[in-house]
Amino acid sequence: MSSAATGEGAGNTEYGRKAFKRSKSHFADRITADGRDGWPVEPGRYRLVVSRACPWASRALVSRRLLGLEDALSLGVTDPIQDDRSWRFTLDADDRDPVLGIRFLHEAYDKRETDYPGGVSVPAVVDVPSGKLVTNDFQQITLDLATEWRDLHRPGAPDLYPEALRDEIDEVAEGIYRDVNNGVYRAGFATSQEKYEAAYRDVFRRLDQVSERLRDQRYLVGDTLTEADIRLFTTLVRFDAVYHGHFKCNRNKLEQDPVLWGYVRDLYQTPGFGDTVDFDHIKRHYYVVHTGINPTSIVPAGPDLSGWLTPHHREQLGGRPFGDGTPPGPVPAGEEVPAGHRP
Amino acid sequence: MSSAATGEGAGNTEYGRKAFKRSKSHFADRITADGRDGWPVEPGRYRLVVSRACPWASRALVSRRLLGLEDALSLGVTDPIQDDRSWRFTLDADDRDPVLGIRFLHEAYDKRETDYPGGVSVPAVVDVPSGKLVTNDFQQITLDLATEWRDLHRPGAPDLYPEALRDEIDEVAEGIYRDVNNGVYRAGFATSQEKYEAAYRDVFRRLDQVSERLRDQRYLVGDTLTEADIRLFTTLVRFDAVYHGHFKCNRNKLEQDPVLWGYVRDLYQTPGFGDTVDFDHIKRHYYVVHTGINPTSIVPAGPDLSGWLTPHHREQLGGRPFGDGTPPGPVPAGEEVPAGHRP
Repeated sequence: MSSAATGEGAGNTEYGRKAFKRSKSHFADRITADGRDGWPVEPGRYRLVVSRACPWASRALVSRRLLGLEDALSLGVTDPIQDDRSWRFTLDADDRDPVLGIRFLHEAYDKRETDYPGGVSVPAVVDVPSGKLVTNDFQQITLDLATEWRDLHRPGAPDLYPEALRDEIDEVAEGIYRDVNNGVYRAGFATSQEKYEAAYRDVFRRLDQVSERLRDQRYLVGDTLTEADIRLFTTLVRFDAVYHGHFKCNRNKLEQDPVLWGYVRDLYQTPGFGDTVDFDHIKRHYYVVHTGINPTSIVPAGPDLSGWLTPHHREQLGGRPFGDGTPPGPVPAGEEVPAGHRP
Repeated sequence: MSSAATGEGAGNTEYGRKAFKRSKSHFADRITADGRDGWPVEPGRYRLVVSRACPWASRALVSRRLLGLEDALSLGVTDPIQDDRSWRFTLDADDRDPVLGIRFLHEAYDKRETDYPGGVSVPAVVDVPSGKLVTNDFQQITLDLATEWRDLHRPGAPDLYPEALRDEIDEVAEGIYRDVNNGVYRAGFATSQEKYEAAYRDVFRRLDQVSERLRDQRYLVGDTLTEADIRLFTTLVRFDAVYHGHFKCNRNKLEQDPVLWGYVRDLYQTPGFGDTVDFDHIKRHYYVVHTGINPTSIVPAGPDLSGWLTPHHREQLGGRPFGDGTPPGPVPAGEEVPAGHRP
């Protein structure tokens, strides 16, 4: 949910004055199998717009890969650096998304609601025929990809939100959301020492809990990859590169926690996770855009990424990553993360 | 050499506009055994003024302890936070240094040179009878403590600058000064991505070299503690707490380099080193004063310091820390680092 209104925008106005508070997604229509909101699941009809910098958008990137939805749901990737017009398609030829034909994501927002005053955030799912934004509800998008889009899943796709485990997934994800996914932002954008320290405590208390849980258990819930792992992964993969220094979550690096470092490398090395991660986009976004906490916009050269590809030995804990299914195939042509942007 | 003119002052004006450049010490008189500059070594005559935050001043703190000069050379400790009048004695009763009777270190500078326009820096050695600053030459002060003050050393004091090793000490210290002691500042106060990256490369190239040198050798030069170790220590002890995040020297933490982490813990645990280190002063100084790179002035709660007291096993490399001498005694009453400010 990287947006100007939530502290990740170019304006950086929100966190300068008051406590950091993540706003609710404004557009919460759902794309469903039965089309009850007017948006039926259809192959090729929608376009997922993300920034590879954004942890919320990256959840959808991972889900789409694991479920093999690449052909059914096309992908637009924005520049990691927003300007005052927010997310831009400056990575594309002519600075224009080749499918939507727009230069700024806000154009899809404007088509949906004239003079929408809120933030422009990713992930965003856009209806290609009308050019209208359908949803920017980052909490719902991945759940719907896992359940409502089932007819379009690849053969062998995992069940990322199995009925029998939903309560447990929801509960685990809720605590991780509050204390970790969003907790790092509360720490980084805190406007007082007290608020920062409260957030820092939440982050590490929850990480310690999660680390304990994952000590003898390969995945967060059950013995397969689920939505819960995806949500934790997109924060953990950014932890040492940005949250540790930039957001001052610096009790220790993830690399210094053998359990979490093993867990996140395990996921990173699993097809569909690491192949969506662009460390260059991640670092440049946070360090360049957040001038309120990094006024020089200088981007750290570290950390050393070579450790990401080292053996994690988590397979010794058992677990069936894809359940009865199979790993996804290779990244579609044109969607590869450039060589210089990964370990 | 923490001073307003060198980027560590309250004004923070220097590093905002141009490349960071450390200015030369302006007052370079020497206190010598023969008193040739007019300042003879005398017990009780001079006062060493430091900030425990400052790596340059902390060299003198360590030397004074190792050499047992505490009685001969008294100590004034400033508040780690400068205001626009620079270093302040706000930790003392009535906000006044009890021996010099001044509220601001600049008063001693002013007594020495009326309307001195330069920065007010620590370490500073002040002549107590006249109240005049004698020297703020951080590169020379520790050398003179080791050599010119010899008559006042404690029994069993080590030779920190042995004649036979001076060329080697100078050479090693010179490279470490340029690339590490001062290199971290060049990285942290860089005004362009290019200058930052050049400094970052220098820092880690030199640290890798030093790490290699220290792999099978307990100390930098010879088999005893010398000036070279003191100079490296005061930077390394700050590395994970401030230079890693605040100055973006984040390829890896020192804790992730087994050799350097062992070396710095070995020194930290040696009497005279760690007992001078105040992590609270260190963190608050850098993060509060440098609003140009940390505009919120929020001070990170990390890193976890508990590792500093863990076994380092460096004694297995041999070496004779104090040569034919002995370790210093306990810290004098009134000079202890408060319990909450250390591991």
